[in-house]
Amino acid sequence: MTTLTALSQQERAPLLATLPGWTAVPDRDAIRKPFTFADFNAAFAFMTRVALAAEKADHHPEWFNVYNRVDITLSTHDANGLTMRDINLARFIEQAAASLGQR
Amino acid sequence: MTTLTALSQQERAPLLATLPGWTAVPDRDAIRKPFTFADFNAAFAFMTRVALAAEKADHHPEWFNVYNRVDITLSTHDANGLTMRDINLARFIEQAAASLGQR
Repeated sequence: MTTLTALSQQERAPLLATLPGWTAVPDRDAIRKPFTFADFNAAFAFMTRVALAAEKADHHPEWFNVYNRVDITLSTHDANGLTMRDINLARFIEQAAASLGQR
Repeated sequence: MTTLTALSQQERAPLLATLPGWTAVPDRDAIRKPFTFADFNAAFAFMTRVALAAEKADHHPEWFNVYNRVDITLSTHDANGLTMRDINLARFIEQAAASLGQR
């Protein structure tokens, strides 16, 4: 399975089981998770860590922020679906959220 | 007029006239503008400039980003409407967008 092949339902189930809080987006082949931090400083620090990783991997999130909240959606446009690129970015996002004191 | 008093329609018209591209958000007392940059690097650099100014002013945007696009909504929750805080942040955002090569 390459990073640019959309994951089958059978492939993604065990992967998503390791990413608590990530849920399927209705009407799209994408996953989403909302994050909450202490304040804007922590939320934007989190976004900055994710931005650097995303740029390095050339795989970017769709995200919304207001104050201490960050809502992230991941999907691979080139594959029309969820790929290992999304799983790998979600894994990094989890680490970054923990390091910034996700509530 | 203090920064925390919602602007009347009469007050805001001349102010918004100096902010091209900013439009009223339907069903909310808020203004919105979409921005497009060359790539994610430029878009996130723009967001970082805005984040620092927002934190300094303790007045934060609601914003969505995907790759080279940033969609910003401004409103003052404490005043239930648009205030000079939003106008001032919009002015800074315009400068930052120009400095980052907004398309």
